[in-house]
Parts: sequence; C-alpha cells; structure tokens
Amino acid sequence: MDDIKHDTRGRRQFLAGGAKAAGAIAAGSMAAMQNASAQVNGPEWMHQPGSLSKGYGQPSEFEEKVQRAWGTGYPTVSPGTGASRTPLQSINGSITPSGLHFERHHNGVPKIDPDKHELTLHGMVNQPLVFSVKDLLRYPMVSRVHFIECAGNSGANTLPAAPQQNVQAIHGLFSNTEWTGIPLSILLEEAGVDPQASWLLAEGGDAAAMSRSFPLAKGLGDAMLALYQNGERIRPEQGYPMRLLLPGYQGNMSVKWLRRLKVTNEPTHTKDETSKYTNLLPDGKAHQFPFVLGVKSIITHPSGATKMPGRGFYEISGLAWSGAGRIVKVEVSTDGGASWREAKLDGQPQSKAAVRFRFPWDWTGSPALLQSRATDDEGRVQPSRAAWTPTYSAANRFHNNMIQTWAVAADGGVNNVYA
Amino acid sequence: MDDIKHDTRGRRQFLAGGAKAAGAIAAGSMAAMQNASAQVNGPEWMHQPGSLSKGYGQPSEFEEKVQRAWGTGYPTVSPGTGASRTPLQSINGSITPSGLHFERHHNGVPKIDPDKHELTLHGMVNQPLVFSVKDLLRYPMVSRVHFIECAGNSGANTLPAAPQQNVQAIHGLFSNTEWTGIPLSILLEEAGVDPQASWLLAEGGDAAAMSRSFPLAKGLGDAMLALYQNGERIRPEQGYPMRLLLPGYQGNMSVKWLRRLKVTNEPTHTKDETSKYTNLLPDGKAHQFPFVLGVKSIITHPSGATKMPGRGFYEISGLAWSGAGRIVKVEVSTDGGASWREAKLDGQPQSKAAVRFRFPWDWTGSPALLQSRATDDEGRVQPSRAAWTPTYSAANRFHNNMIQTWAVAADGGVNNVYA
Repeated sequence: MDDIKHDTRGRRQFLAGGAKAAGAIAAGSMAAMQNASAQVNGPEWMHQPGSLSKGYGQPSEFEEKVQRAWGTGYPTVSPGTGASRTPLQSINGSITPSGLHFERHHNGVPKIDPDKHELTLHGMVNQPLVFSVKDLLRYPMVSRVHFIECAGNSGANTLPAAPQQNVQAIHGLFSNTEWTGIPLSILLEEAGVDPQASWLLAEGGDAAAMSRSFPLAKGLGDAMLALYQNGERIRPEQGYPMRLLLPGYQGNMSVKWLRRLKVTNEPTHTKDETSKYTNLLPDGKAHQFPFVLGVKSIITHPSGATKMPGRGFYEISGLAWSGAGRIVKVEVSTDGGASWREAKLDGQPQSKAAVRFRFPWDWTGSPALLQSRATDDEGRVQPSRAAWTPTYSAANRFHNNMIQTWAVAADGGVNNVYA
Repeated sequence: MDDIKHDTRGRRQFLAGGAKAAGAIAAGSMAAMQNASAQVNGPEWMHQPGSLSKGYGQPSEFEEKVQRAWGTGYPTVSPGTGASRTPLQSINGSITPSGLHFERHHNGVPKIDPDKHELTLHGMVNQPLVFSVKDLLRYPMVSRVHFIECAGNSGANTLPAAPQQNVQAIHGLFSNTEWTGIPLSILLEEAGVDPQASWLLAEGGDAAAMSRSFPLAKGLGDAMLALYQNGERIRPEQGYPMRLLLPGYQGNMSVKWLRRLKVTNEPTHTKDETSKYTNLLPDGKAHQFPFVLGVKSIITHPSGATKMPGRGFYEISGLAWSGAGRIVKVEVSTDGGASWREAKLDGQPQSKAAVRFRFPWDWTGSPALLQSRATDDEGRVQPSRAAWTPTYSAANRFHNNMIQTWAVAADGGVNNVYA
C-alpha cells in the first residue's frame, strides 16, 4: 500500500478540487490515512475468525434502529388496532424487505394454523368450494411485484398545517414487494360463476373479520390469492397463511388472512366500507368505493426531519407508483415546481409496482424546495397541492397523492412544507 | 353460508369429476364441511385479539423449518469455513428472501463497525482514494436484480453416483435478490485509471482476506459496489457494510466485506484463484479465471427427496439464469428429454437475473423423468449431462450447469438420477 498518497485534505477541499476537475459528480472523500501500517495489517476484524452461519439471517446489529414505527393513531383501547410504517428514509432500491413492510391491523395479528385454515368460495357459483392451504399450494401460480398502499397514507399532509414529521411517519403506509400466488380467476372458474354475478366479498380471518366488496371484473382480472412474499411464505402480519391481493386498489381491500370469498350481484356494504374507506367530498357527500389509488411519487432521500451534512453532491431519489398502471416518467424540481427535469428510472417499471427514481443534484448551500411528479401510462399526472385540495372536503384524509414538498434550509435542515 | 353444499366428496373424486368437467387444470379440493355452524362462527383465532406489531417482522413460526442448511463440506477445523444453502424447495417467485440467501464463508462472518470501515482504491490510478461508508452512501446508485451462484453449486452431481439429496443440498448455492449500490465505474473514474491498467484486485475484510482478480473491463461495465440488498442495508453474511457485485461471474468474485480495490496491469494470482476456483480439464490442466457462469435451470417443484401426494395436477416450476445475459426460453420435458415443451416465464427476464418458469403437468401416476433446459439471449443452451461431462476432468466439481433430472416413481417419490 505504499502507493497511497497520505493526503490530509478533507471532504470539502476534495469536492472543490480534484473531483470536480476530474468531472466527477460524486461526493468522494479523500479521508486522511493517519496510519498506513494499520491499513496494511488490516482492521481488528481481520485478526479473528468471524461468527458462524445462522439458519435464517438478520440485519446487522448496527442497523437495529431501522424499524417499522407503530402507532394506533385512533381513539381505541385495542392495542392491536393501528398501523406500522415503513422506514422509507432508510431503505433503497424498489423492493421493501418483508420485515419492514407496513402494516394496518384492525384487531392485531392472528396466529393461524395452516393445517386448520380453510378458504371458502361460495355465493353465486355453480359449485361452492372449500380449499385447504395444502391443496392451494399445488395450484398454478404467478409472481409479480406490486405495491400496497393504505388509503390513509400521506393523510397527515391533508391537515391544515404541515406536520413536522419524517417520510416514514407521513408516507410510510406504502411498501412494494414480490407476491406469488394463484390468479383468483382460476378459483372462480373452477367454482363456476353465475352469469348474473357482478361483485365479490372478501372476509379476513382476523378477530375484526375485515370485509370488503370488490368488482367481479377485478377478481377475474389481475387479482391474486397471495401465498408467498419476496420468495418465502407470506408472513403473519401480511396475512399468513394467505391474503387477497388486489393490485393498485386501496391496501385494506387486499384482505389478509383470507377465509371467505362470496360471489354476489351487488356490493355487500360491510362495516369497513361505509363509514370507513370512503372519501369525503367538498359538498359533504362521501365517495364510496374509490378503489384505484392515484399516480404518486415521494422523494425519500433527502426527506423531512433530517439534516444534509453540507453542500455538494446528493442523489435525490424516491419511489413512484400508480394504481392504474405503469410509471412512464418522474420529474424532479429543486425550485418548488418552477422548473422540472426528468429523473432516471431504475430498470423497467412494471404495472402497479413502484419504481425507484434517481436525480443528481449539486447542492450549492442555498435554500431549495424539492418536489417530484409522476406520470403513468394512462396519462395521469400527479397533482399539485393546489389541484388536489379542492377535490375533497377539508376533513378528508384519504387518497392523498398530491406532490410532496421538502424544504431544504441553508443549514441543510430538511422539513415538510406546503407549497 | 347456507348456500354451501355439504358435500363429502374427497379430493380424488373431485379431481376426476367436477374440476375436469369444468375444464379446470387445478387440483382443487372439495373438502367436506363437517360442521357448518363452526364455519359461520369462525375459527378460534377470530375469537380473540391478535398479537401486536413488531418493529421488524419475522416468518411464521409454522414455517420455522424453512432454513438455510449449513455444512462445511471441507476438511477443516475452522467452524466458520463452509457454506449454507438456500431451501429452493420451500420458496417460490424469483426473489430469494435475504434471510435465506446462500452463504460461502472462508473464515466466518466478520462483525464490521460501519463507522470504522474504509474502502481503499489504489494501484494504477491518478489519485488513490479512501472512502468511508458514510460518504459512499451519498453516491449515485442503481438497483438491479442479480443472481449470485457459487462456482461449486451443483458440484455433487459431478460425482460418479447421483447423490440422493434434495434440491437445497445439490443446487442451493444459488440465490437471486435486488442489489442497490454504486456503479464501480464511478469510483474508478473518480480515481482516474492509468491507460496501461487492465485488471483489478478485490480484497475482503474477513479474516481470510478473500481476494480475487477481475478484468478492468468488468469493473467499468456492470460491476457494482453493493450497499443494499432487497431494499435494506446488506446483511452481515452478505458483506455488511458493503460487497463487490460482479453480475454473472462466479459467486466468490463478488467479494464480501470489501476493503480494497487495486488497479493492476495483470491478474494478481491470489491464493483464492490458483488452487481453488479453477476448472480441471480432461487433460489434467486447469482452466484459470473461468469467470462467466453458464446458462442453467433447475426444477425446484417437484424436486428430489420429496414425495408427491398423488396423481393429478402439479405445476412444475423452477428457476433459470445465465451468467452471460437474459433468459429467453425454458423448455420442460417429463420424459427424460425425449420431448420438450416451452414453459411460461414470470414477468420480463432481466440480464444476469433468475426468472421463475412454470409448466402445467397432469401426473397420470406413471413414472416420469423431469428436466428443464434454458436458453439465453446469447444463444447459449443448457447442456445435457452427456454433453457437459467430457468437457472437464472427472475430478472437476466446478461450473456444473448440466440439465438436472428428477425421477418420479409410481408411488410419487422424486429422486435425483443421472440421465
């Protein structure tokens, strides 16, 4: 290692000098090497054997602060009622690790014995069917990446004043994973659907018996009975041993711990789709069954309630998705929407799946307003706050897909603002 | 639920009757409903509140048998030297959960403090550089799904007699995940590579100081300094706080716990690339630096050392990949290669990434020989055993990408055979 220059320049000098001269956009550090011989001998962890393998791996203990954040957020005495949020500020890529997938439970996580669990398919069918888990695992399956977003995600930003929270607290009811399961159409075809039928009812096996109605066309379309998530059997808080997956629809319609599907000729109007999960409109009426989630994007790096460590290069990145289709474009603004430039998308965006966008930014140290704006292949464009707000009652907290603004202060502080 | 027929027909009768009449290919079960009122009241887990959320989720306790299998397989007194294998028979989809990603360690898993770890880039460069983890996390990144396969994967099938093991034991040194990190080309460009340079040396921060040489062209191509896996920071056994990722190359070249990259004008011929990780040829010579992994596919369902529960529908499925590019076709044979039919691929295959293939099969109860054969976009076709075997010495255990045969017996038993 005698060819390493013992340079004592700090980061800032390097950024202003060599890196820019070389055309590099990167925030490289030419850290001082105080002790070259220590480098040659290697760090302490090279002087002792490492630890043994585990049958099932876990994240590093140095990352133990990366956790879902649980909050009830509801006037309830039931501790199992509430939601946990994905730490979007700490993850990268497009896949959400299963251990950090957001949750929304209406009465906690049931412990379901897969050998005792049954799925009943009945109602307006030629032949009612009852399926064991074991039998379902033999069915034809398909794997697709899909996001799930709670209808109440980003609801905090509909409050009169911008909440001073981080991206996890405001937008963390959103995750994106690979789901594997049986196309629901196969089970419906097996039961034989009455030509007069037009709706389905899904009921969960939790103590809240979460129940939602959805159109038969969705059931015969891209709906899935999901059995695996990110390769392994779906986890308890995601519906073990199985959940319904309705891609692009409000998250709670992807009923977890699914135990019953009933074919009907009208919506069932369950407790979970009358007072709840409807959107309040400006005239006081409620829009029921607003299934499809809007086109949306959120900048996760940098994001609210953090502090940027100084001027220089940053990669602005985040996630974009649409409940109606595939993301075709994400634009980024650093001046509060006065000007926009297109971000780069990682890989090929899939339908009703999140894509990571990336945008290089050299922060000069001046205040900035960071925004992102997504467009999907249906031509839908993510609305501004000004455009979104009048479409709902001021009391509505659902389906907020408006553009998020993060304000960067001269000291590097990043905060949520309304703009 | 009064519209459910209290049918007591068992699975077999159903399969022979209704399902086929309805044109269904599915192995649906019309399980007897012994007690309709119990169904209406719901199972026991609907009568009590569920458990609370956890900050970081885990698989169901009913799936605790789904584990990596550790074995040293080597004459060593070092318990940290060996490999753990992914339970391919128990997972589905294309993504491997991070907790089940295979491992190969040469001296255990080091515990590395990210605040103390440094990556040194030196050798034939204009400006040697030392990077802290904190600085690297600010660099531009990219996310891509890539497989990693150990050069010794499937080596057991090069032994004279077919090992009676399951797919995990034979082929489990293979996993496929989403990696996020910095294109290595950015760091190399920042350091400024000498025009005379042509190779790189990568050294790991484990006590074995795992070291491999690789061509500079790969470093300037799709090589990545990986910092995240499946969304979260890379785990300790996968190289925390960072690993090299050389897509499509022998797994051990994707050096974990990366601490040093040296630019050179020739291979370094380290201990890990002379006696080891070379392929023994029929004439007794060894092929050094056989970097690119072959085109390959493995049927994971059904697979060896399992028993199929009876005749009827099965989805034959597995994974296909190529170290050279993208999978364009997977064919399946149920008669030992006498006839082939094309399988369905999940989604759009990506370069140097695994894709799940699926093929519907109605097992009549007769003995069968299951095979799969992959083709990539370079036109490479997975070789048969007969074609692969003469290309290497009988003592060679590396780079086995020959077609796997699973024999299905009349009693449903599935076993590894050479065919």
